Amino acid sequence: MENGSKLSSNSKKWGFKKDTKQMTKASMTTIRGVITMLQENLDKDDVRSVVPLSHGDPSAFPCFRTTPVAQDAIAEAVRSAKFNGYSPTVGIPPARIAVAEYLSKDLPEKLSPDDIYLTVGCTQAIEIILTVLARPNANILLPRPGFPYYETRAAFSHLEVRHYDLCPETGWEVNLDEVEALADENTVAVVVINPGNPCGNVYTYNHLKKVAETARKLGILVIADEVYDHLVFGSNPFVPMGVFSSITPIVTLGSISKRWLVPGWRLGWLVTNDPNGILKEQGIVDCIKGFLNISSDPATFIQGALPQILGDTKEDFFLETINSLKMNADFIYSRLQEIPCIVCPSKPEGSMFVMVNLNLSLLDDIKDDMDFCVKLAQEESVMILPGIAVGLKNWLRITFAIEPSAIKEGLERVKAFCDRHAKKQ
Amino acid sequence: MENGSKLSSNSKKWGFKKDTKQMTKASMTTIRGVITMLQENLDKDDVRSVVPLSHGDPSAFPCFRTTPVAQDAIAEAVRSAKFNGYSPTVGIPPARIAVAEYLSKDLPEKLSPDDIYLTVGCTQAIEIILTVLARPNANILLPRPGFPYYETRAAFSHLEVRHYDLCPETGWEVNLDEVEALADENTVAVVVINPGNPCGNVYTYNHLKKVAETARKLGILVIADEVYDHLVFGSNPFVPMGVFSSITPIVTLGSISKRWLVPGWRLGWLVTNDPNGILKEQGIVDCIKGFLNISSDPATFIQGALPQILGDTKEDFFLETINSLKMNADFIYSRLQEIPCIVCPSKPEGSMFVMVNLNLSLLDDIKDDMDFCVKLAQEESVMILPGIAVGLKNWLRITFAIEPSAIKEGLERVKAFCDRHAKKQ
Ligand SMILES: Cc1ncc(COP(=O)(O)O)c(C=O)c1O
Ligand SMILES: Cc1ncc(COP(=O)(O)O)c(C=O)c1O
Repeated sequence: MENGSKLSSNSKKWGFKKDTKQMTKASMTTIRGVITMLQENLDKDDVRSVVPLSHGDPSAFPCFRTTPVAQDAIAEAVRSAKFNGYSPTVGIPPARIAVAEYLSKDLPEKLSPDDIYLTVGCTQAIEIILTVLARPNANILLPRPGFPYYETRAAFSHLEVRHYDLCPETGWEVNLDEVEALADENTVAVVVINPGNPCGNVYTYNHLKKVAETARKLGILVIADEVYDHLVFGSNPFVPMGVFSSITPIVTLGSISKRWLVPGWRLGWLVTNDPNGILKEQGIVDCIKGFLNISSDPATFIQGALPQILGDTKEDFFLETINSLKMNADFIYSRLQEIPCIVCPSKPEGSMFVMVNLNLSLLDDIKDDMDFCVKLAQEESVMILPGIAVGLKNWLRITFAIEPSAIKEGLERVKAFCDRHAKKQ
Repeated sequence: MENGSKLSSNSKKWGFKKDTKQMTKASMTTIRGVITMLQENLDKDDVRSVVPLSHGDPSAFPCFRTTPVAQDAIAEAVRSAKFNGYSPTVGIPPARIAVAEYLSKDLPEKLSPDDIYLTVGCTQAIEIILTVLARPNANILLPRPGFPYYETRAAFSHLEVRHYDLCPETGWEVNLDEVEALADENTVAVVVINPGNPCGNVYTYNHLKKVAETARKLGILVIADEVYDHLVFGSNPFVPMGVFSSITPIVTLGSISKRWLVPGWRLGWLVTNDPNGILKEQGIVDCIKGFLNISSDPATFIQGALPQILGDTKEDFFLETINSLKMNADFIYSRLQEIPCIVCPSKPEGSMFVMVNLNLSLLDDIKDDMDFCVKLAQEESVMILPGIAVGLKNWLRITFAIEPSAIKEGLERVKAFCDRHAKKQ
């Protein structure tokens, strides 16, 4: 064998050697990557507790605990031993029926269970639709600021990203003129996140309708990320994009992660809102099924518990979450007014986040948002996500889905930090 | 807008149109695809029950029900509310520790929890390692017959497949001369499935050692698929490939799917057996972590239940499964001797399958294995997987992990079918 000689060498040559930059590059853009970096900057000698205003997982806090209905549903499903086997790749029928009924409550036309594909959280639903849409030279329109997993997955599938801006002046609405200007014959879809991460906005019926009309005009798909569905506490009600499916086909992505406060359960869905059968006719449905055949499935017994989770959860549970979020949003908004170098363009009305602008001209030795967040972690043990991680330099994304006392403590420390670093007049 | 004119046309042009062949091709090679086709050939007017000798999921049969220990562990984990949040992408620490301890029991050197990556079943572990190893012009050595998901995933990642043969004459051992002849400087790995699917073989210590030595010589990775670990009932004990990690680095893939009879729970692992740190040095470990950052995770509370599942399951439960499989294997082997056109080269000693050869010269109007299986489904409502689905034309793969009465009934019908189609002398 020609390889035999290698054995005599001390530095053996291995056929599987990797250029790690290649694979690790894609994962560097994740929010998790930035949070890990901030964690490494925390001062281990600070006796105060860390205030985590950076992440989107409230499940560790007692006031954001899921309902016993959901826990019992899981325990019963696993004890029944009816859901130990492999599931069909699209999901088990009772779970698909349950999601179709649950979502149809807010839609003019009933969804069929065949429109529902169960996924490993909304994250996998994003993976599926971007993989399916990718083809050489194709591009996709993503919001800026946005949810960086879209960028990561697009890069992995060699799908070109074009960013349209969300405008703080108009309550973070989609800049539709920009969408039209960006789109060309290789554009496959526009992604709309509502309620919004990171901006905490909730779009009106009319604005969503205009998005659908624009997509129709451009001949592109609307991907509606509604993972924060129903988490609204301002003046605008939650309107699912699927309401406009007669105008243009909509693919809705969602999960139980946020509304049920169980992101670790990894159960989501991809839904085709397509009464005119356009997605079928254009091959998208076959491609979704094809990709599901080679993808991971959510655990069968969690699917088995879904009819009970979606059907039996009491309104009280949802209201409690909304009340907590609303109180926290009000509180954080009023406290932020007291910090001169932080400007909050609008009070958050949905999801768990608010985007605020840093006025660097009022600060002495802070270079940018990243510098602000690193020093804040070092000096005050407060973690806030720099806007650059979601596409908006010199902004900050602050989570308010944590214990109220922790928000209070966190904002006091942010204020002290800003005072200390304020430019001397 | 240049697209404006499209609106006037009735057959609107959509930017997301797909050539479905592209995506659906990859998923056609799956076992599920062939089984679905056989199902469609079943005679709906046959009043007899269908005998499913084609699939690898025994969990529906009362004699292959999982242990209450595992069910209780899940119920407790979910009720604790400690595992509702997102998990680290590599898995939660207690679960990684539990897998390291569980696997180390059979290894000369203890694994570290850092060697363990939790996955959505063994299926996702396959996806991860093949995606990580793929690079332009690379090739991988796969067994024939084998588990077609490897071929599917390799195709998806543009990894060239080269098949080495398993030899029925030597108890389905790896043809090592062929492995050496197939490998070149672009070969990244060789896959070994032990206990074997589809062949039901269990490799000896000495044979596995030779595989490791060959891989070392060639400078390629050994991917050890041990999803059927411990499901052995012949003369050879189960020897994990990791025993030879000081010879060459091994990546072991496994799950609780088979030994605990819960394939629907979707919990598996990818393990680096690498005491010399070669995988780290060659960039493989960083690439695994990088890809995990953008991949789906197993549900956190199932990970939370893992220490109890792995640690508290009683030996009795395992023995019962082994006894059932052994009885079924003995029975099926003896009954197959009575069917002249079916030749069984060796009695299965592990996993849940046996490969048998079709002697077509004894049959009258059967073209090949696929024809045999389609007509068998139509005429006898018995489902058997044609060998072509696992890479071996004119063989059959038969599952014996079903209710004993169903095996008996199924083989009687196979015998009747073969008698009816036998060539008249
Ligand atoms: C906008 C958006 N989409 C999708 C997801 C992923 O949701 P899941 O936890 O259901 O995978 C998140 C999670 O934070 C999100 O913020
Ligand atoms: C050889 C082999 N590897 C991997 C798998 C997948 O295992 P899991 O169900 O844990 O994903 C199977 C399932 O049948 C198999 O036979």
